[in-house]
Amino acid sequence: MDGSHWLSMHPLVEKLTENGHDVVVVIPESSLTMEVNFHMKNIDHYTVRTYHGSYSKDFMQNLIKESIKHVFTHKTLLQNMKISYETIINTTNFVTSTCENLLKNETLIKDLETSNFDAMLSDPIFPCGEIIAEHLSIPSIFFLRRGAPFGMEQEASKSPSPPSYVPRIFTTYTDHMNLSQRVKNVLLSLFDFVFCHMLYSPYTRMASEFLKRDVTAVDLFSRASIWLLRYDFVFEFARPTMPNMVFIGGINCVNRKPLFQDFEKLVNSSGEHGFVVFSLGSMVSEIPMDKAMDIAEAFRSIPQTVIWRYTGKVPSNLGSNTHLVKWLPQNDLLAHPKARAFITHAGSHGIYEGICNAVPMVMLPLFGDQMDNAKRIESRGAGVTLNVLDMTPEDLINALDSVINKPSYKENIQRLSALHLDRPIHPLDLAVHWVEFVMRHKGAPHLRPAAHDLNWIQYHSLDVFAFLLAVLVTTFFISFKCCTYTCRRCCGRKSRPKSKSKKE
Amino acid sequence: MDGSHWLSMHPLVEKLTENGHDVVVVIPESSLTMEVNFHMKNIDHYTVRTYHGSYSKDFMQNLIKESIKHVFTHKTLLQNMKISYETIINTTNFVTSTCENLLKNETLIKDLETSNFDAMLSDPIFPCGEIIAEHLSIPSIFFLRRGAPFGMEQEASKSPSPPSYVPRIFTTYTDHMNLSQRVKNVLLSLFDFVFCHMLYSPYTRMASEFLKRDVTAVDLFSRASIWLLRYDFVFEFARPTMPNMVFIGGINCVNRKPLFQDFEKLVNSSGEHGFVVFSLGSMVSEIPMDKAMDIAEAFRSIPQTVIWRYTGKVPSNLGSNTHLVKWLPQNDLLAHPKARAFITHAGSHGIYEGICNAVPMVMLPLFGDQMDNAKRIESRGAGVTLNVLDMTPEDLINALDSVINKPSYKENIQRLSALHLDRPIHPLDLAVHWVEFVMRHKGAPHLRPAAHDLNWIQYHSLDVFAFLLAVLVTTFFISFKCCTYTCRRCCGRKSRPKSKSKKE
Repeated sequence: MDGSHWLSMHPLVEKLTENGHDVVVVIPESSLTMEVNFHMKNIDHYTVRTYHGSYSKDFMQNLIKESIKHVFTHKTLLQNMKISYETIINTTNFVTSTCENLLKNETLIKDLETSNFDAMLSDPIFPCGEIIAEHLSIPSIFFLRRGAPFGMEQEASKSPSPPSYVPRIFTTYTDHMNLSQRVKNVLLSLFDFVFCHMLYSPYTRMASEFLKRDVTAVDLFSRASIWLLRYDFVFEFARPTMPNMVFIGGINCVNRKPLFQDFEKLVNSSGEHGFVVFSLGSMVSEIPMDKAMDIAEAFRSIPQTVIWRYTGKVPSNLGSNTHLVKWLPQNDLLAHPKARAFITHAGSHGIYEGICNAVPMVMLPLFGDQMDNAKRIESRGAGVTLNVLDMTPEDLINALDSVINKPSYKENIQRLSALHLDRPIHPLDLAVHWVEFVMRHKGAPHLRPAAHDLNWIQYHSLDVFAFLLAVLVTTFFISFKCCTYTCRRCCGRKSRPKSKSKKE
Repeated sequence: MDGSHWLSMHPLVEKLTENGHDVVVVIPESSLTMEVNFHMKNIDHYTVRTYHGSYSKDFMQNLIKESIKHVFTHKTLLQNMKISYETIINTTNFVTSTCENLLKNETLIKDLETSNFDAMLSDPIFPCGEIIAEHLSIPSIFFLRRGAPFGMEQEASKSPSPPSYVPRIFTTYTDHMNLSQRVKNVLLSLFDFVFCHMLYSPYTRMASEFLKRDVTAVDLFSRASIWLLRYDFVFEFARPTMPNMVFIGGINCVNRKPLFQDFEKLVNSSGEHGFVVFSLGSMVSEIPMDKAMDIAEAFRSIPQTVIWRYTGKVPSNLGSNTHLVKWLPQNDLLAHPKARAFITHAGSHGIYEGICNAVPMVMLPLFGDQMDNAKRIESRGAGVTLNVLDMTPEDLINALDSVINKPSYKENIQRLSALHLDRPIHPLDLAVHWVEFVMRHKGAPHLRPAAHDLNWIQYHSLDVFAFLLAVLVTTFFISFKCCTYTCRRCCGRKSRPKSKSKKE
């Protein structure tokens, strides 16, 4: 995987190397985020094997910049749809050709073949790794945010997902939906299913070519021995799960270190009002100047110190309480007792860090599942969501005032935090256990539901219902025929004398 | 709860008292099994409150004796159905009147009201405890073998249970069923549902009377904060679960003590062939003499020492290698390296002890879910099932020879054992954690699915489909009307000139 998806897998890989396992990380030369490279290049506990990713670093950085520009621009519905479509096409082309390059890299593939691996750990959002795992005949452990991507859910994990109370991605619905929302949710389930099959069709082609036999994307998704899901029910809504799903939400909160000296100094000087942490995630460190000025304006008028991750041009109206930094130790800052609020883009990593450290949030969701995440935290009363496009400085001031000064927000996030942290085993240890379990036992076949061996008709017992219906109809038909025959005989006997008498 | 259901809850209650909790155990004066009393009376870590159970100890012992007599008697299908019906009526009357006595015991209820409990731990197979938990407004933890009893499953826990691969209780099917089995499984699901509602209707009445408002059995079953399920997927088949289900299969294997001196002497003297453990569970310690003679006959001709829990008259053909004992430390004996085979009635406790200690089994299922349990172990290749009514001494000798001398049985049970014991946390610690979790947080509402707030039609999105169908039909109807109207207009216009010309 790539981008921020690597961030939460990283502590697990680290821990596995600590436990004495040899880990080989396979990534393209140019990666989606700087962080990924940062994490990769500074650590030599594991082997990193790179391959030529078909796109240059400059191209990638431009791609990200363009996406961010779009996020901060007012658009009509038509423009929005056009951009969404282009983004999907671009992303699909980009990841598909990257995967193609990996599969065509004979030296690397030969190397992997001879390495005798025990298991493959991957985020299957794009199932390129799965093609190789299938080629190497090794069991897979999936490491991902939700269940299977989009509509693959039921097919890939066989985990039922009733649309009546399991809101679909990008809907921002909660688990309590009214009829109109449930109608949209059902329609989206159908759309998701079709969309997902289209999105993953290139993998069907690549897998079939590479493995020299027919393989579908669903085949790739359903070969997981264990699904390590960054999912915790204080944040996500309760829903059916499967025995091979392991919930490790909050795994990224593990990396706690003492604050660097400059940050320590900054937070200690924040006085009785404490400080606010502001970051829009690993991919967004610059925003348009007018938006930056609005935000700086808001920060000027609050009594808290603000630590803002921002690499763009300094806004001219920046207050003396606002400190711009190129990078910040987010989890360590949020863990500080003087942290009063967390302004976040509502990426799942940030949300979990907010929950772990019980810091109420002001959320400025930008793209992807961030709107859903924000809605979930808002529905729990632990944060306020703002529309980054429309918000005024006053909106931001009011939102910060609410989460900092209204006790309900702090109480709610503390309640969520207490529930989240009250677990029998730390998510990192749990993840390590299950990776090692798969390595020790060459998979976890006893956790794989037999539903994988049924087709769609059998799974839903449609053949059974058809059979029962046929029996019912046949019984009814025979009974009806018997009745009419008997009636006719009876009536016939009665009526015969009449006809006789007529003849007579 | 009562009978053997208490046996596996006992270590949990013990552990809770060790952790400093005050536990009050409420039981009827006469209990279904001697073991229950044995466990109760010898331990004073917790308070035991008894109430008059409306049936005497003699009545109970007779009830058990009668049931066992039936098990060992050849019967026609009609007789079988008659006895099953009588057993259900007797058991229902017995447990209902016991519950009624508890609810009418004003002194005890007043005492419970003033005790300020944090939580209620109960086996909801008969949901009397739940009526009191509801009365006391305290959260519940269910401790049970499977999910909700019979057809209550989906309603009570909202855990989907597709009949296409989740075999129903008493079917002895595996998770791979052919069409005919799936038809029966679907029909049984429907029957279970109706049967279960009938079986629990007395509780609806009692709960409504006691709580002075309308309460259904499903209401009682669905109030569980946590379901502690004695369920492990090396033994049970993988199927959908819910976030508030915690799997603690094998919790009863925890109580391991050094062998008493006489048993130690016995097993050490068993020589190179080792020994066989034979018990038909806590409720069956006597069997008819002809059956006992058959079994003794088989044991005479095997080279192993046999330790047989048996309190009946000594069979005259008892071999010198067979030792009859009134009670045996089953788990400790199975843990001994010289244990070669375990002859069991396939109760779930025994099965888990067989798995924990990797001892292959010969199973003689008698009643209840024991046929299902035996089928599961047999389908895993870790044991042989015999029909206790029809088996000859040769059958038993052959079965023992297979499980002891064919390597596959030992290999399979060792594989199951390795998978079962490879867990991140011991089931007892897991159970304690979740009981204390419920006590600390006054329940676990975040793990409760929103499906509980939907009715049957909403849950299955039937209203959504009806709405979509209505929209579709209306659209089709309007389109059709528009088309016919347009056609008529067009044809009308075309035909008018014709008629004009005709007129002309």
